[in-house]
Amino acid sequence: MIQDLPFKKIEPGDTASFSKTISESDIYGFAGITGDFNPLHVNKEFAKNSLFKQRVAHGMLSASLISTVLGTSLPGLNTIYLEQNSRFLAPVFIGDTLTARVEVLEKIEEKSILKLKTEIHNQDGKKVVDGTAVVLKK
Amino acid sequence: MIQDLPFKKIEPGDTASFSKTISESDIYGFAGITGDFNPLHVNKEFAKNSLFKQRVAHGMLSASLISTVLGTSLPGLNTIYLEQNSRFLAPVFIGDTLTARVEVLEKIEEKSILKLKTEIHNQDGKKVVDGTAVVLKK
Amino acid sequence: MIQDLPFKKIEPGDTASFSKTISESDIYGFAGITGDFNPLHVNKEFAKNSLFKQRVAHGMLSASLISTVLGTSLPGLNTIYLEQNSRFLAPVFIGDTLTARVEVLEKIEEKSILKLKTEIHNQDGKKVVDGTAVVLKK
Amino acid sequence: MIQDLPFKKIEPGDTASFSKTISESDIYGFAGITGDFNPLHVNKEFAKNSLFKQRVAHGMLSASLISTVLGTSLPGLNTIYLEQNSRFLAPVFIGDTLTARVEVLEKIEEKSILKLKTEIHNQDGKKVVDGTAVVLKK
Repeated sequence: MIQDLPFKKIEPGDTASFSKTISESDIYGFAGITGDFNPLHVNKEFAKNSLFKQRVAHGMLSASLISTVLGTSLPGLNTIYLEQNSRFLAPVFIGDTLTARVEVLEKIEEKSILKLKTEIHNQDGKKVVDGTAVVLKK
Repeated sequence: MIQDLPFKKIEPGDTASFSKTISESDIYGFAGITGDFNPLHVNKEFAKNSLFKQRVAHGMLSASLISTVLGTSLPGLNTIYLEQNSRFLAPVFIGDTLTARVEVLEKIEEKSILKLKTEIHNQDGKKVVDGTAVVLKK
Repeated sequence: MIQDLPFKKIEPGDTASFSKTISESDIYGFAGITGDFNPLHVNKEFAKNSLFKQRVAHGMLSASLISTVLGTSLPGLNTIYLEQNSRFLAPVFIGDTLTARVEVLEKIEEKSILKLKTEIHNQDGKKVVDGTAVVLKK
Repeated sequence: MIQDLPFKKIEPGDTASFSKTISESDIYGFAGITGDFNPLHVNKEFAKNSLFKQRVAHGMLSASLISTVLGTSLPGLNTIYLEQNSRFLAPVFIGDTLTARVEVLEKIEEKSILKLKTEIHNQDGKKVVDGTAVVLKK
């Protein structure tokens, strides 16, 4: 669903989220779009001997789920993405279920701008991505 | 090719880049992975009447090309992505050719950490994404 | 359709073909699977100044259409691909319609092996790939 | 990263490689691009009763990783693929990690042409594809 929240109805503290289990095909598809074939993502043998012991999702793949919440839920339709700051805190593995959540921190009325806290947790409640976003709601 | 630059050989001022023409199939693939089906990205009729008059690429799709440079060129192999801050400055359209470029700003020897300037320009030299990254080189 | 031609019914001179228009998304998908992001394939601006003046399909993408004929038509089901030799004679552009054609050259009864001539032409009748294949029909 | 090795710096004996774990999504994507839906590749039930007891990757999918090495590493930028000969020696299964390796065999100075040995091994060191390539380096 693509929600269309009017700017005036949005308040600090409002939240929205989107959840998805990350599949191997998501990681391979993301590598295929971006060209990032770093072996940590697409080489099982290399990854076995790496810090994480298995293939991990691209950090920007996880972070992109924030875009999904902003563009489909809060504020949804007619959102112009101005800024995304992301810190990658923990690895995301094939089969992990991520929940991307945004929370309105601040509303700049005259500019029709929102600042939001953006977080992604895995199925164990571990925070894997932390950050903030700035969007313009037309 | 996945480059493996030793940390000690990397110096502030070093740069690397990656270029790609963004296709409609990239945008559709990205929507399919992230679930961000905002009509600005996948609805030609809606987009006609929008601010940009045509479908635009997801901001995070463009920004993800930075990941490609970091993970395949500079510093390449055994890069752990710690942080990415991105400002979306201008729309990216189907058929635009993007060049993602990173430049080492600072080297924190004792932590094996690099801070980088990250920029993406289109074929007309217009900057479409601006930002910074922090990575750990193992 | 997946045909299942009995070995004994196959004779030298038998032919089969498969045709498809090569789309930008085919080339991008192929780059995404193989990791071959050579700018000749995925960078419109670079390609403009190259020998071919525009993006070209990966040679192995075109050549792979031979596999389609062998695996689905002649000899079809239970084909084991033993060898493929391909010469890339002319560039394939986005929108070109290719016809991959195989012709049985020789039948080695006791080994259940076929040698075939393999050719790919574009919509103008220009031969773009030339070669031979060897398959085992179980 | 796309390397650009000057022809004069390339010598017989030079090597380069590219590695990737073959996923189910690679095989399905390859079938979707080429149209080779032979059940050996995309029908688990059929494949169970086949020679290999499970689905196998298209031979040309594996062989295409050679294109990746040639087009991104050796000789990289401005490579024109003239010829690829491949023998398919052993099956490649979902989850196998392939390493495609090329080695310069011969340099034809006056034509700017290279002949290369091309090999693909799986994670157990078994050779799955053997062959030769001819490329023109502009």
